[in-house]
Amino acid sequence: MSQHTQTGGMTIAIIGTGLVGLGWAIVFARAGLPVRLHDKNPEQLKDAPIRMQQSLRDLAEYGLIQESPEEVLARCSYHNDLAEALKGIDYVQESVLERVDVKQDIYKAMERCLAPHTIVGSSSSGIPASAFTQDISFRARCLIAHPVNPPYLAPIVELVPASWTSTDTVEAVHQLMNRVGQHPIRVHRELEGFVLNRLQGVLLREAWALYDEGYCSLEDIDATISKGLGLRWSFMGPFETIDLNAPGGISDYAQRLGDLYLSIDKERTNPQPWSDELISKVEHERRQHLAASKLIERSNWRDRRMMALAAHKQHQEGQ
Amino acid sequence: MSQHTQTGGMTIAIIGTGLVGLGWAIVFARAGLPVRLHDKNPEQLKDAPIRMQQSLRDLAEYGLIQESPEEVLARCSYHNDLAEALKGIDYVQESVLERVDVKQDIYKAMERCLAPHTIVGSSSSGIPASAFTQDISFRARCLIAHPVNPPYLAPIVELVPASWTSTDTVEAVHQLMNRVGQHPIRVHRELEGFVLNRLQGVLLREAWALYDEGYCSLEDIDATISKGLGLRWSFMGPFETIDLNAPGGISDYAQRLGDLYLSIDKERTNPQPWSDELISKVEHERRQHLAASKLIERSNWRDRRMMALAAHKQHQEGQ
Repeated sequence: MSQHTQTGGMTIAIIGTGLVGLGWAIVFARAGLPVRLHDKNPEQLKDAPIRMQQSLRDLAEYGLIQESPEEVLARCSYHNDLAEALKGIDYVQESVLERVDVKQDIYKAMERCLAPHTIVGSSSSGIPASAFTQDISFRARCLIAHPVNPPYLAPIVELVPASWTSTDTVEAVHQLMNRVGQHPIRVHRELEGFVLNRLQGVLLREAWALYDEGYCSLEDIDATISKGLGLRWSFMGPFETIDLNAPGGISDYAQRLGDLYLSIDKERTNPQPWSDELISKVEHERRQHLAASKLIERSNWRDRRMMALAAHKQHQEGQ
Repeated sequence: MSQHTQTGGMTIAIIGTGLVGLGWAIVFARAGLPVRLHDKNPEQLKDAPIRMQQSLRDLAEYGLIQESPEEVLARCSYHNDLAEALKGIDYVQESVLERVDVKQDIYKAMERCLAPHTIVGSSSSGIPASAFTQDISFRARCLIAHPVNPPYLAPIVELVPASWTSTDTVEAVHQLMNRVGQHPIRVHRELEGFVLNRLQGVLLREAWALYDEGYCSLEDIDATISKGLGLRWSFMGPFETIDLNAPGGISDYAQRLGDLYLSIDKERTNPQPWSDELISKVEHERRQHLAASKLIERSNWRDRRMMALAAHKQHQEGQ
């Protein structure tokens, strides 16, 4: 792949080999980089190559890797010892459990064995870097690098610095992510939910409210996205969408529809939690369409659809 | 196509041959139904077949129609006279300008020439049927049937009844839309923005706020959708997405992430209009990425991407 030479020499460590960590390992190994994997649980680490091999076979089937799964896997090594995994490494993708104390512990442990140039990106989806790097000597080289799961199919990565993260750190991770085929975005300072989950969150809140108020079934709300709005959003963001949706571009659109959206917003100024009763009702209706016993099968369907879509987009964007 | 026999005998009129009206004509003619088109502007009506032919050729190129453009077009006829267009017709898709007085006028005019069984769906994207059918004798047979543009590529149709719309009317249009290959959803009663634009609206409002507050560039916010969230949303709605995103399904997800989304919502309880200054700033930044002179070219790119995606989805869903 063309990335090999551009990232030549960089070495990667993955700390935590859950679903997210292994997804990252595939991203970096696929791009030609040597990847050291570590997990404090030896059983989990032992299973890592088998689990990665399955994902790599799926990628090969959809034409999403040019090498064989074995060639990609050959770049990975597995280390029960944290210091061994981190020795002299350039970039660490920390993907341990999403809990402040767990994150704090691993950063303390890393402090004892990181090289002075090593940068650490955290896969945290919600906890900001400031919550677990404040007292860490290398905190200027820490930031959030939050992916969508699995990162080898959804290229977006949110880079969110703490106030003490150096701009060099942000720049270096931005370049690295670009070079391994991801699509990094710069969030300029920390905020609750970062950008990705905020955008998901507002859509979910409105969807739940519409259901709660009896306007629509879950299935029909879902179709509004999957057979409507979501089509364009799979290749254009919301700003580009509206820029092309009024003859005079985005300001024309804002003049035409701003008042409508404002008045919708004004109906939603009293945020309420999702009650247990509402959650039960949603769960019950959802189970009419998909039995709990079929959740795994349907997740596999989703993964195959994501692969097919990635291949489709690659084809479209290569044209 | 398989729809031919199922919809046998139904006749369609399209009132208003702008972009939306012509899109609808293609939907119905593609499904094998005879379609009469009317526009009060004779020049616009005269251009209709040429404009439809271009869209049909694109559809043929992407394998989205099985017949030739000419065979589909042969089902369409063009009528300067409203009464002639409506005579004995089963279903009217009203697609005139989105303005209450214009809608009111055309419903008054239709009143004089509709058969007693004719149903009228309006393409209105925001004005509810109650705003222009209150004093109309056939108001029980009127509802909103709001598409995404173009309807022959995005199957979603929101059916929104006024309080006086009969349930038979909703049921009949639901069946018709299914039979011509669209995906109708039932919105049980009128609300500002219906469902589709509310879901679009909340995402846009958060996107504009994040930009306004300096968290992210427009381009990076767009990428969060087009390289991240929007991928799944092109084949699954938000409820199904979260149902598959926690081991225990949707209620498990709600327990885990409900508090985060609530706290995000609580930061947004003071809705403000998009100021002229903000709109100018957004317009200016957007124009750095796409010159105003390139808007049409980029819209054509979007249309081709929509066609390619429709073909991709058809292939995936036919498997």
